[in-house]
Amino acid sequence: MALDETHDPARLSWVESANAAGCEFPVQNLPFGVYGTRGDGKPPRGGVAIGDQVLDVAGFSKALGFTGPAAAAAAACAEPNLNLLMSLGRAHWAALRLALSRALSKERGWEDRRARASGCLMPMDQAVLLVPARIGDYTDFYTSIFHATNVGKFFRPDNPLMPNYKWVPIGYHGRASSIVASGTPVTRPSGQLKPPAAEIPVFGACRNLDYETELGFFIGTGNDLGMPLKIGEAAEHVFGAVLLNDWSARDIQAWEYQPLGPFLAKNFATTISPWIVTMGALEPYRTAAFKRPAGDPAPLPYLTDAADQAQGGYSIAVEMFLRSEQMRTAGMPPLRLSHGNYRDAYWTLAQMVAHHASSGCNLQPGDLLGTGTLSGDTPDSLGSMLELTQRGANPVKLPSGESRAFVADGDEVIQRGRCSREGYATIGFGEAAGQVMPAITA
Amino acid sequence: MALDETHDPARLSWVESANAAGCEFPVQNLPFGVYGTRGDGKPPRGGVAIGDQVLDVAGFSKALGFTGPAAAAAAACAEPNLNLLMSLGRAHWAALRLALSRALSKERGWEDRRARASGCLMPMDQAVLLVPARIGDYTDFYTSIFHATNVGKFFRPDNPLMPNYKWVPIGYHGRASSIVASGTPVTRPSGQLKPPAAEIPVFGACRNLDYETELGFFIGTGNDLGMPLKIGEAAEHVFGAVLLNDWSARDIQAWEYQPLGPFLAKNFATTISPWIVTMGALEPYRTAAFKRPAGDPAPLPYLTDAADQAQGGYSIAVEMFLRSEQMRTAGMPPLRLSHGNYRDAYWTLAQMVAHHASSGCNLQPGDLLGTGTLSGDTPDSLGSMLELTQRGANPVKLPSGESRAFVADGDEVIQRGRCSREGYATIGFGEAAGQVMPAITA
Repeated sequence: MALDETHDPARLSWVESANAAGCEFPVQNLPFGVYGTRGDGKPPRGGVAIGDQVLDVAGFSKALGFTGPAAAAAAACAEPNLNLLMSLGRAHWAALRLALSRALSKERGWEDRRARASGCLMPMDQAVLLVPARIGDYTDFYTSIFHATNVGKFFRPDNPLMPNYKWVPIGYHGRASSIVASGTPVTRPSGQLKPPAAEIPVFGACRNLDYETELGFFIGTGNDLGMPLKIGEAAEHVFGAVLLNDWSARDIQAWEYQPLGPFLAKNFATTISPWIVTMGALEPYRTAAFKRPAGDPAPLPYLTDAADQAQGGYSIAVEMFLRSEQMRTAGMPPLRLSHGNYRDAYWTLAQMVAHHASSGCNLQPGDLLGTGTLSGDTPDSLGSMLELTQRGANPVKLPSGESRAFVADGDEVIQRGRCSREGYATIGFGEAAGQVMPAITA
Repeated sequence: MALDETHDPARLSWVESANAAGCEFPVQNLPFGVYGTRGDGKPPRGGVAIGDQVLDVAGFSKALGFTGPAAAAAAACAEPNLNLLMSLGRAHWAALRLALSRALSKERGWEDRRARASGCLMPMDQAVLLVPARIGDYTDFYTSIFHATNVGKFFRPDNPLMPNYKWVPIGYHGRASSIVASGTPVTRPSGQLKPPAAEIPVFGACRNLDYETELGFFIGTGNDLGMPLKIGEAAEHVFGAVLLNDWSARDIQAWEYQPLGPFLAKNFATTISPWIVTMGALEPYRTAAFKRPAGDPAPLPYLTDAADQAQGGYSIAVEMFLRSEQMRTAGMPPLRLSHGNYRDAYWTLAQMVAHHASSGCNLQPGDLLGTGTLSGDTPDSLGSMLELTQRGANPVKLPSGESRAFVADGDEVIQRGRCSREGYATIGFGEAAGQVMPAITA
């Protein structure tokens, strides 16, 4: 992918709210989502965020007379999920992005375009934003070596980082059915708990509820079963990115996870942001590749791609905020707990995709790949409460006077993300937020 | 569920092949599947196996004038997968089973029913049998304590059975996209291999390709996210069972599995039998519950159900066979490698389902739950080659003079299953078979 006019920071939109300073959805972003509207009886459909509005993509294409691949891609947005659009591939995505960017621009003929598009926009705050794809399979990776080391210390003090970590982009299959869109309440799970000192486990409400600050990447075009992807072509298969909070029940996890990995500790809810920022939009924000520390092994050839290295990692800033019930009542804003960046990941996106398909596993349009918790190497970049409070030993102080070792009932956990670069527009991800509801007691 | 006329061993069918001795699909079975036909342009649809025929369920219901819940359930079989049928629930499934059993019986008026059904039957060997559901999520358990102990010995000689095993029905999320129907070739995966003595890993074709002899249970009705299922109601949510071969790359697994569990070692293919034997059909084959050895803890209350214990486990015999290319060329039949039984599982089906939903995880119609390898405590009941050959140390001798430490290219691995009980019909599962193709070399 190359930078083109869709990334031009001087381009403005006739949707004036998109031009406001600090707007996450300027015309340079154009993220895709699926939205419904309360009570109008219309089925959910694909939309694009522009300013504070949602654009009906299929309707806009018809109204403006898009042609060729852009029209075909826009027509796919009439579906109740984006799987069909995702399956069309990069040339279609790029054509639609270009057509939307031009049509929404405040450039020659814009008044006419605005007039023709009148029925295609609605205020975002009146839309119901849904999980944007039918997610066939969800895989979660573990690409931050800082997170892997921090967590490893708690579970295996003498052996924090496994010997395979620097060779294998570690991942596991997660639960697709419990992926929810931002705003969905999260019920505190119950499960088997056995503190190390306890003789036997008990079944009860999770006491150590945590979040994990991640990104999720949606697969666009898939690969056939038995047919691996070469690393040089792996990134072409990715459609775009969302924020992802991998809610985790640490006490359930500690007791259940051996030998087959996390299960109930992570399958009760995963919150994603509803707007998929496309790889096209992310292109300007690639940065110097993560430098493996001296002495670390080079990736094996199937995970090595000079072009991927040269283009570098994606600089995507991710932040996690918390607001307790008390803070909300007192009108206090959420407290920022951490800020990290995806560019610090040990394994790149292309490496995740190529590794996943290296067994012949078939990826499909709409599959979701989590990055794992994006912790950095500084105390303010720790992407989970486990790390932040050192497993509860150093609780976080809230401005309300409360403190938190882990997440409490009533707390809202809010993730935000943003890309910026000198000379380019700043684009945002919106948010992935969820409020914790008390456990169900039988 | 109770025994009723559909289980009557004296009932015969006017589909004469169903009455033959040894037929796996007598009128007492009536398993559901999805089938297509080559070249007739009709979309895949739901069918029932009867003798050597496949019955078009929706068409048969129309032709015979089914009414009420039976007709509604039959109409759901016009879909290209069984998810809608599965979602209807136990009363609908039972009504359809009863209606089909009566309509296919060689009892009063059968000539008329046969005449009216003339367009609804086709020979099974002309049908293309597909994966019968859109599998949203696939979970694999680890319910045989014998298998867990045997495998644990290889990976952790000093600590074969984890301390959680007797408390937690261990499971993990598997890959749904690579579940294939019997007969689909299986390409040998490649991956990172690091024998313990090797300094660094290499990427190459799996050398220790294995199978695992399991059963898979399809979820019928689901539960809402955040709403656990009580153990007493858990079994009602299950639609039926298939044979399941959880193909496993042991060398990839050994290197990748810590700390998050199996990933690429098991996501390249999972073979299932195409006919789902319903819980209704399985009801007569419940048997004395598995006896936990003295000294083992009782399950926690959320996993305890007196009625489930009293009704016992399902006696389902599972066998695994292998036939090499040489054996096939020489016209030799497949060699039986092992025979086990699901009744020996440490955790019951109801316990698997209740545990899975105990976190609030939402199960959905069409989800698949694997039992894990069904090894027993005798040498002839070991459900994987890892166990059978003691990790390759004692290869299996084939009648062709060859030997196998693990599965070789060209080998067919064929799983069969059967239920029998004195005074009842014997019913079968058909087969879950796959032939191994050589690894793809770049």
